[in-house]
Amino acid sequence: MDCIFCKIVKGEIDSIKIFENEHVLAFLDVVPQTKGHCLVVPKQHFENIFDIDKAFLQKIAVTAKDISEKIKNNLKADGIRLSQSNGRAAGQEIMHFHLHIIPRYAGDGISKDGIGKAHPKKADVNELEKLAAKINN
Amino acid sequence: MDCIFCKIVKGEIDSIKIFENEHVLAFLDVVPQTKGHCLVVPKQHFENIFDIDKAFLQKIAVTAKDISEKIKNNLKADGIRLSQSNGRAAGQEIMHFHLHIIPRYAGDGISKDGIGKAHPKKADVNELEKLAAKINN
Repeated sequence: MDCIFCKIVKGEIDSIKIFENEHVLAFLDVVPQTKGHCLVVPKQHFENIFDIDKAFLQKIAVTAKDISEKIKNNLKADGIRLSQSNGRAAGQEIMHFHLHIIPRYAGDGISKDGIGKAHPKKADVNELEKLAAKINN
Repeated sequence: MDCIFCKIVKGEIDSIKIFENEHVLAFLDVVPQTKGHCLVVPKQHFENIFDIDKAFLQKIAVTAKDISEKIKNNLKADGIRLSQSNGRAAGQEIMHFHLHIIPRYAGDGISKDGIGKAHPKKADVNELEKLAAKINN
C-alpha cells in the first residue's frame, strides 16, 4: 500500500521518533504548528476512527497522555491540544489514523478555536532531533 | 466543587444525553459548532489529560469511536473531528476533561484547520432532543 505513515512505520521513510512500542509509533511532525508538534499512529494500517481496532485506539490514547506529560514538563508547554480528523471533509490528508499532539505556548499565535497557523514552515531536521531528545529528557 | 460538568453528571444541570455508562457520559453541546456536536466526559472529575486516570481515558476513547460511527451513519456526516484541549493556553474553558466530537459536513463553513465557527449560536433544546434520538436511531 502506498501509505506514507506505513512507510514511516517500516523505516522506509525516516522520522524523528518520540516513542515506539509494538503497536504504536509517535514522531515529530516535520511541518510543526508549534514546537514539539507530534503525531501518534498505530503501526497497523487503519484509515480512521471508524475502522480502527479498539485495542489500538486505547493504546494511542494512553501514549498521547504519556507524551503530553513529557511535553508539558520538558518543553514547558502552557497547554496541549489533541486533535484527530476523520475524512477529507474534516481535513484529514493522510489516510492512516493519526492523532496530533499540539503543544500550546502563551502567545504562540494560534487562534483560540484553530488548531493551526495559516502557513507553518518545514522544520530543520537537526532542530527536531534536539527537540526529540529534550522531550524524552 | 463548582464544576458545571460535575453538575451535569449528577443531574443537577440538565443535558441531552447521547450515551451513558458507569464511567462516562456523552451529551450534546448546547452551542454546537455543527449538527451533532457533542462532548464525552469522565463521570469522575479530572481536569485534563495530565491528571486523568488512564482507565477513564481508554473508556472515553472507545465511547468516542462508538458515537462517531453512529453520527456518521445516522446523521450522514461526511467526516468527524475529535478535539481535546488542556489548559487555558490551549483554549480549555471548562476545567473538567472533555473530548469534542465535531461532525463535519461538506460546506459546513468551518475552515480546514479550524475546529469552529467564529460565532456559533445556542441551539433549540427541542431540536437537540430530536437530534439525540436520531443519533441513537
